[in-house]
Amino acid sequence: MSPQTAPITLADLQRPVRARLERVPQELRRIVEADFGLIAQVNSHLFQTQGKMFRPTLLLLADEATGARDPRVTTLAAVVELIHLATLVHDDSVDHSVLRRGMPTINSLFSHQVSVIMGDYLYSRAVIELVRLDDLEPLRVLSRVTNEMTVGEMRQLLAHEPIEFSEEAYDLLIQAKTASLLSGSCEVGALQASPEERASLRRFGAALGMAFQIVDDLLDYVGDSSVTGKPTGSDLREHKVTLPLIAALPRMGEGEQRQVAALMDTAEPTDRQIAEVIAAVGEAGGLEYARDRALRLAQQADGELDALAPSRARDALRASITYVVDRTR
Amino acid sequence: MSPQTAPITLADLQRPVRARLERVPQELRRIVEADFGLIAQVNSHLFQTQGKMFRPTLLLLADEATGARDPRVTTLAAVVELIHLATLVHDDSVDHSVLRRGMPTINSLFSHQVSVIMGDYLYSRAVIELVRLDDLEPLRVLSRVTNEMTVGEMRQLLAHEPIEFSEEAYDLLIQAKTASLLSGSCEVGALQASPEERASLRRFGAALGMAFQIVDDLLDYVGDSSVTGKPTGSDLREHKVTLPLIAALPRMGEGEQRQVAALMDTAEPTDRQIAEVIAAVGEAGGLEYARDRALRLAQQADGELDALAPSRARDALRASITYVVDRTR
Repeated sequence: MSPQTAPITLADLQRPVRARLERVPQELRRIVEADFGLIAQVNSHLFQTQGKMFRPTLLLLADEATGARDPRVTTLAAVVELIHLATLVHDDSVDHSVLRRGMPTINSLFSHQVSVIMGDYLYSRAVIELVRLDDLEPLRVLSRVTNEMTVGEMRQLLAHEPIEFSEEAYDLLIQAKTASLLSGSCEVGALQASPEERASLRRFGAALGMAFQIVDDLLDYVGDSSVTGKPTGSDLREHKVTLPLIAALPRMGEGEQRQVAALMDTAEPTDRQIAEVIAAVGEAGGLEYARDRALRLAQQADGELDALAPSRARDALRASITYVVDRTR
Repeated sequence: MSPQTAPITLADLQRPVRARLERVPQELRRIVEADFGLIAQVNSHLFQTQGKMFRPTLLLLADEATGARDPRVTTLAAVVELIHLATLVHDDSVDHSVLRRGMPTINSLFSHQVSVIMGDYLYSRAVIELVRLDDLEPLRVLSRVTNEMTVGEMRQLLAHEPIEFSEEAYDLLIQAKTASLLSGSCEVGALQASPEERASLRRFGAALGMAFQIVDDLLDYVGDSSVTGKPTGSDLREHKVTLPLIAALPRMGEGEQRQVAALMDTAEPTDRQIAEVIAAVGEAGGLEYARDRALRLAQQADGELDALAPSRARDALRASITYVVDRTR
């Protein structure tokens, strides 16, 4: 979004917690380990597609920035990544996705059946591990988060009707689908901190998470497909209504509104239809509006960090806002 | 199995705990309540297909028979039923089942997507409710049970190869798929009891659950389809290998073994193929063998109840064994 500033990399954010972060994958492997052949195969495939560990990073930074130094922090970081993984496995199954991070999804490589069961396996392992920590507090936060994510997925199923899908409904969707787990990760990293710091980090994660999803949805309109890894306009192609379109729609002329309606009524819209709607959304100020909202959420997230004492970890949390807002993939 | 004795009904078992059992559906509704339209719709459909409440019955009887009188028992009973429901929703989605208890499944009435998400929704609500009870013990039991059930489902996917599927593998499958939740229900009903009573009830539930599944699998061979509600031989039709076939196979002649192999190699076996294999399984003693195993498990379950003091609830637990072994649906 501001390509003129030096880009912040994930490695920059992770520096203050690198040593502990490097133990997370091993911890994750321990938690999901199975002597059952098929499960072990799926696990090993999942680890190959391992992601950016953004949620564990936030959790570890929250712990570090509050000086809490919770001895269970590596396990907790592995558990939030595991919950994220379980969600992705079911999401891909629900969406019939074929690729994730350039690798075949579980549903495409194994089967729909295996992916439903495997998501359940991973999530129940996460709960077992949290029970083992002998403390209800992380479970209290993360069971609520997991439930919110399912509500978000349900909302997603209904987000295909631009006329009826309001910005308020969009906010509820991205809060549940994306912000809840980022918020929960930050909060669980601050369970040993003061109630004020814990609340600030929870709100920080929520604002950051909403900005994260808005930028994701924006990239679908403006991203370079060679960088994002998916074709521009794929949300429109799947009739997914996101903030740029919601904001643009009431400001469009009748002709453009009809174009949108036509696209939504077409089972497989053409590239030209998609390009025209993307252009119309831009002209009606939809992209700018979404960018503004992401920036306001970023400011909100930034403000929450004032509750913490200055530290390298707090700097990294601030930098994570820039990372989220400026990312191009 | 012994139709000459007076049949024991579910209502007979439920008598000692009827008042509390009647509060379970309302408690279940409270736990899963949602202000979100689609979720509320699915919930209301689920409640219409409400089952026999066998697991809540066992839990309440275990509580009563140990004199524990746990004040949380109605909630715990609702939670085990909820976990059972969540599992059924995912099972039906995995199996692409169209009907369950004579009603359309969630996947057929709504969609595959809705059923995956809804199973996750129900299970995460169960965890939230357990956390609210402020005690890790029920969670410890039930998170392990839930994970075992996913392993059982995975084993089920692989249970299609009669030559490789041994009785040992079958035992592991039914232990994980069915016995674990019956065992967990009995154990969670005895959390306030002595460790000995708790362990006895856990083992009682495990033996009862294995007998339950063996009888289920037997009914697929010998049941009256107008009573069971599904056509005889549907497991064979779906290439599901169960105990009668496992036991019969090594005692069959070469011709019959070839018939079995041919059925397993046929995508859609004919009614005649199925009838022939059912007859061959019977002639080779497969049904008798399975019946014997169910009865031995029933004896084992019965023996475990000797650890409890005599009571109406203990009598009902004993009667539940007869109910399981004698049932015709």
